[in-house]
Amino acid sequence: MLAAAYEELDRDSFAALTLDRLARRSGVHVSTIRRRWRTVEGVVVELLAERGSTLPTPDTGDFRRDLTQLTQAIADFNNALRNRNVLQGLLAAAAHDPRVEEIVRAAFVRRIEEVTLIARQAVERGEIPEDTDPREVIAALAAPLYYRVLILRGSIDERLVHTTVEATYQAARSGVFVRKGDREG
Amino acid sequence: MLAAAYEELDRDSFAALTLDRLARRSGVHVSTIRRRWRTVEGVVVELLAERGSTLPTPDTGDFRRDLTQLTQAIADFNNALRNRNVLQGLLAAAAHDPRVEEIVRAAFVRRIEEVTLIARQAVERGEIPEDTDPREVIAALAAPLYYRVLILRGSIDERLVHTTVEATYQAARSGVFVRKGDREG
Repeated sequence: MLAAAYEELDRDSFAALTLDRLARRSGVHVSTIRRRWRTVEGVVVELLAERGSTLPTPDTGDFRRDLTQLTQAIADFNNALRNRNVLQGLLAAAAHDPRVEEIVRAAFVRRIEEVTLIARQAVERGEIPEDTDPREVIAALAAPLYYRVLILRGSIDERLVHTTVEATYQAARSGVFVRKGDREG
Repeated sequence: MLAAAYEELDRDSFAALTLDRLARRSGVHVSTIRRRWRTVEGVVVELLAERGSTLPTPDTGDFRRDLTQLTQAIADFNNALRNRNVLQGLLAAAAHDPRVEEIVRAAFVRRIEEVTLIARQAVERGEIPEDTDPREVIAALAAPLYYRVLILRGSIDERLVHTTVEATYQAARSGVFVRKGDREG
């Protein structure tokens, strides 16, 4: 059923996804789908759990190259129509249900945490200042990409990958993300 | 009716907003509301048109101070519960309806365009390089704020205002947003 949903979202928008369409494509009866997932939003939330966290953490030994690979991976992921649709469906579901909001939030925090390795290694190699907050670096990298998808409703092109990597790299190098005596915040 | 909706969104989440609640608070009959706006999403889209575009464009004569004032204004706007709720409701509506998606997109593009004055004046004063793309500067400034609200589901604190201004300032100064022979793109 989840595979069927993912396929549907590769053909059409989240808006076009209905439980009836899912039933037709998956061969699962619509009442069964409704019992288990309640709504299309419920289906999309389970898709997040299943397919959301597959981005590898680059480890090239070079901070700028790591940033570039991570940005490209986020771009490729979100440029796939079905993933963009899942994301938009998730935020729609989050607006309607505080429990979903918490699931979405936790999923993104976890993904950021995973890839902070890039910034922590850059600190260890002396490429960026000590006391750099690694989560701020990753959030700075991710933000322009999600802004493009969610607010400007466009795809992430090469130019945006380039400016995002460079802006984050320059800012991190010049100590914008340094926290003095407050590493956790 | 719109004022009533705005008040409701200041007390509770978008998820809690129903046409019945709007009817009770506004004194307008629910069938009238349904006829005119169809859904709560429809109400929220009209709220965007009415109250969305009230941010003034700072003009202090100093690029960094302009960036700080604009960032603070976006922060204050989105930290008000009702505005955050309108935004989240809008994106939910956009996921469900391509026409709403286009309205939301156009509204943000228009707001970016308005405040590009900040970057264009900074170019004129020689604070940032010629051929800097002013829309990229503004998008870089706005992105971390919307990422915080929409993805991390948190409020925009002083620290984020500071890092966002500094990252954008450093990047713009160092020419990250310069487009050679392609000012429009």
